[in-house]
Amino acid sequence: MNISKDLVVKSKHRDMAPNLFRESAYRAVDWIADYLEHVDRYPVLAQTKPGDLKSRLPNSPPEKPESFGQIASDFEKIVLPGITHWNHSRFFAYFAITGSYPGVIGEMLSSALNVNAMLWRASPAATELEETVLDWLRQMVGLPEEFEGVINDTASVSSVNAIAAAREFAGLRVREKGMSGRNDLPRLRIYTSEEAHSSIEKAGIVLGFGQEGVQKIRTDESFRMDSHALEKAIRSDIDEGVKPVCVIPTIGTTSTTSIDPVAEISDICRDHGIWMHVDAAYGGTAAILPEMRNLFRGWEKADSIVINPHKWLFTQIDCSVLFCRRPDVLRRAFSLTPEYLRTPEEGEVKNLMDYGISLGRRFRALKLWMIIRSLGREGIADAIGDHISYARRLAEMIQADNDFELLAPVPFSTVVFRLRPKTPASKAWSESEINETNERLLNAVNQTGKAFLSHTKLRDKFGIRMAIGNLKTNWEDVSETWELIQREAGSLLRA
Amino acid sequence: MNISKDLVVKSKHRDMAPNLFRESAYRAVDWIADYLEHVDRYPVLAQTKPGDLKSRLPNSPPEKPESFGQIASDFEKIVLPGITHWNHSRFFAYFAITGSYPGVIGEMLSSALNVNAMLWRASPAATELEETVLDWLRQMVGLPEEFEGVINDTASVSSVNAIAAAREFAGLRVREKGMSGRNDLPRLRIYTSEEAHSSIEKAGIVLGFGQEGVQKIRTDESFRMDSHALEKAIRSDIDEGVKPVCVIPTIGTTSTTSIDPVAEISDICRDHGIWMHVDAAYGGTAAILPEMRNLFRGWEKADSIVINPHKWLFTQIDCSVLFCRRPDVLRRAFSLTPEYLRTPEEGEVKNLMDYGISLGRRFRALKLWMIIRSLGREGIADAIGDHISYARRLAEMIQADNDFELLAPVPFSTVVFRLRPKTPASKAWSESEINETNERLLNAVNQTGKAFLSHTKLRDKFGIRMAIGNLKTNWEDVSETWELIQREAGSLLRA
Repeated sequence: MNISKDLVVKSKHRDMAPNLFRESAYRAVDWIADYLEHVDRYPVLAQTKPGDLKSRLPNSPPEKPESFGQIASDFEKIVLPGITHWNHSRFFAYFAITGSYPGVIGEMLSSALNVNAMLWRASPAATELEETVLDWLRQMVGLPEEFEGVINDTASVSSVNAIAAAREFAGLRVREKGMSGRNDLPRLRIYTSEEAHSSIEKAGIVLGFGQEGVQKIRTDESFRMDSHALEKAIRSDIDEGVKPVCVIPTIGTTSTTSIDPVAEISDICRDHGIWMHVDAAYGGTAAILPEMRNLFRGWEKADSIVINPHKWLFTQIDCSVLFCRRPDVLRRAFSLTPEYLRTPEEGEVKNLMDYGISLGRRFRALKLWMIIRSLGREGIADAIGDHISYARRLAEMIQADNDFELLAPVPFSTVVFRLRPKTPASKAWSESEINETNERLLNAVNQTGKAFLSHTKLRDKFGIRMAIGNLKTNWEDVSETWELIQREAGSLLRA
Repeated sequence: MNISKDLVVKSKHRDMAPNLFRESAYRAVDWIADYLEHVDRYPVLAQTKPGDLKSRLPNSPPEKPESFGQIASDFEKIVLPGITHWNHSRFFAYFAITGSYPGVIGEMLSSALNVNAMLWRASPAATELEETVLDWLRQMVGLPEEFEGVINDTASVSSVNAIAAAREFAGLRVREKGMSGRNDLPRLRIYTSEEAHSSIEKAGIVLGFGQEGVQKIRTDESFRMDSHALEKAIRSDIDEGVKPVCVIPTIGTTSTTSIDPVAEISDICRDHGIWMHVDAAYGGTAAILPEMRNLFRGWEKADSIVINPHKWLFTQIDCSVLFCRRPDVLRRAFSLTPEYLRTPEEGEVKNLMDYGISLGRRFRALKLWMIIRSLGREGIADAIGDHISYARRLAEMIQADNDFELLAPVPFSTVVFRLRPKTPASKAWSESEINETNERLLNAVNQTGKAFLSHTKLRDKFGIRMAIGNLKTNWEDVSETWELIQREAGSLLRA
């Protein structure tokens, strides 16, 4: 970043001197602009070994101030080689995400203001901008007016908060009396599919349902929750005195982006008075496209829904939105106002601390507001639409290759496939050989540094996942990565 | 920020064009530098009414991209007036916090890299820098080597995670079997003081202990947990078949910064095999000063400790550190690795997702590393030391004023006091009149916009809290605010 390494200038307040800050922040902007424009120069997956970075850093903190030039230089020389570049247009692992330029500026301003938006008066703008911009998002994805949103750091926390509200909704006085050692409280259970994200099981552990209290309903051949099996499980539990508390269908599971039959599930929940929490952390933003809305049928009947703008809405991590149709219940599950947090406006305003675990909170709405305005609904929809069409074209190319097969339908922008060699025809491949070969193929591709993909297992089949979600990704990135995979597969098969 | 309002230039990737980003980010740096240097020009507490900002924003999202110049202009004209300035050197409410200049740059870079540090390979540097810099922090506060740290967003989440580990440590198979409807599971209880932060009670609710499962032990005349009462409560619970799971003493309570007798409490915990979680979210950083270490006696025996660098270590929100002596237990409470998150390095590296609720995580260690290096241990210690000495001088001045009284000792940098008029001597003030007068005094001071303080209640006495923690705060800020309080009190008494 080219900041003088001799300059250790402290203001009277012991912080970096303002003029040094201005100069260093300019250089940081230069660095960021170059980095984001040319991120494709870096290997996608960090080419580093466990302990590499730790071994290059001092074991103890510095006693005296160090120059910012030295720190910036260490950032480039020591930290950067250990970065896996989520900004890279050929990052296709997990759920590929990117922020966007306006998001960087939003985070710059948010970190400068450094407000803690726990209470309305702690920065009225932070609360009211969050209310406003989440209502924009609600309209963009076509949810009814009664849904109110709140931003959490991650979908893991959004789901814990939602399921805690479901527990409160069940009217069991868990908030007051807890769950253990109560003769009046039966076993409680929540229901999700075997393809649900691990954060749902983790929420079950945290909230005291336990792993046995998380019933994983089997899925059909397309990895969608079997709603008949769900209904059967609920009825059988009720017969055995178990109390169903929440059903959590997913729109866009992590392995395959499969879509549970939410409309059918919502009918079951309605019949039994059970809270329905929809995990649309990844898939949710696709509802911005009207032509995709049919995949979301029934989610408007949910009690709560999580959508992560930091996944597929080009928003810097972290920003997970929990929409709730019953914000009063969410509030009842969490609100606790000690005297030192009472304010004159209570009752008149929304205090965001009342809607979840975390008291403190960053001003996360600012970046989301800047991004939505800067890209426009149409720009966001177009980018998501591109990703979906790339995924469909890729899926066709995979189907057209005799040596590969798709392992799941492609409703969104993630393609799961595997090498299943038909050649040489003489060789009969066992399933475990196929799995090992695909694992080797994935590692070979990732080790090139040219692309980064991850994997899953589906009914014991090792599947390579190619998730498209980066604002920089274009068709060339997808097609050349597909060619790279074919090439590496060819080398493996010839070896 | 003076960015052209006509410029809506999109690159081929639908994001803001790189050259427009560079220009806009420069202007943002200029704005931030001016803002942080001259924040004292703004009223501390936002002078705005509920709904003001919402009424000035469009009800619906924009369909088309808007120019960044317009967005930046709206930021200044619409958002900024609704900001309460936590950076202001006369922000003394709640726990006064500030970030610092290097923290802004750290957050800029972190938002540009935009990595999700859930797994080691998702960015090895993010994991290893977190391990390294938290070990630096451990050394700075003088904790033994066996403590390992992990960063969460807030102390609320750090404490939920810690108490979940305590629940796991109790060996009740709650992770597997849950808490409800079990004949083999007695009532479970956690113990804290009546002065503990509300997040502890909230953690009790979330984790299924319920409010009745959170025993609030009485405090002594200095608002410290009565350890005899604690021991009695534990014994009596055990006699009645209740299982004690965790004791949570506080070093630096929110109301008065009182310090529970942690050494005595740790003996009780040891005798009964109970997990001790120390809430030092605010106070913890003061242990960087060797002369303050005596206040921390016994915390080295804790099983877990939370310290928030975003409170008093000049680190941008959010950054809460959970130190744990038994990271294996924390891991056992939370680790769940679905196939799609398996990596070749498993077992060889730390995967941060294993140590708490949140799977996803920002690269928060970067700013903390930059801040510690930029200020140096000594610079940080000096700043904290200044705050403590300001608080002590202020406390002396309050004691010297006949019409005011201190309501609690001042071990750290927060002073709790009230107006208790001796004049006119003819008037006998009732306690409720005194409370009302102090509430009016606080509102009058806050409405000047010149300083912002908050309040608490102590044994039904309304106390004004003046918390000193801002890197920009100097003695003049404290003494002039004290004069402002005296002046406003004079006006009230004469009225």
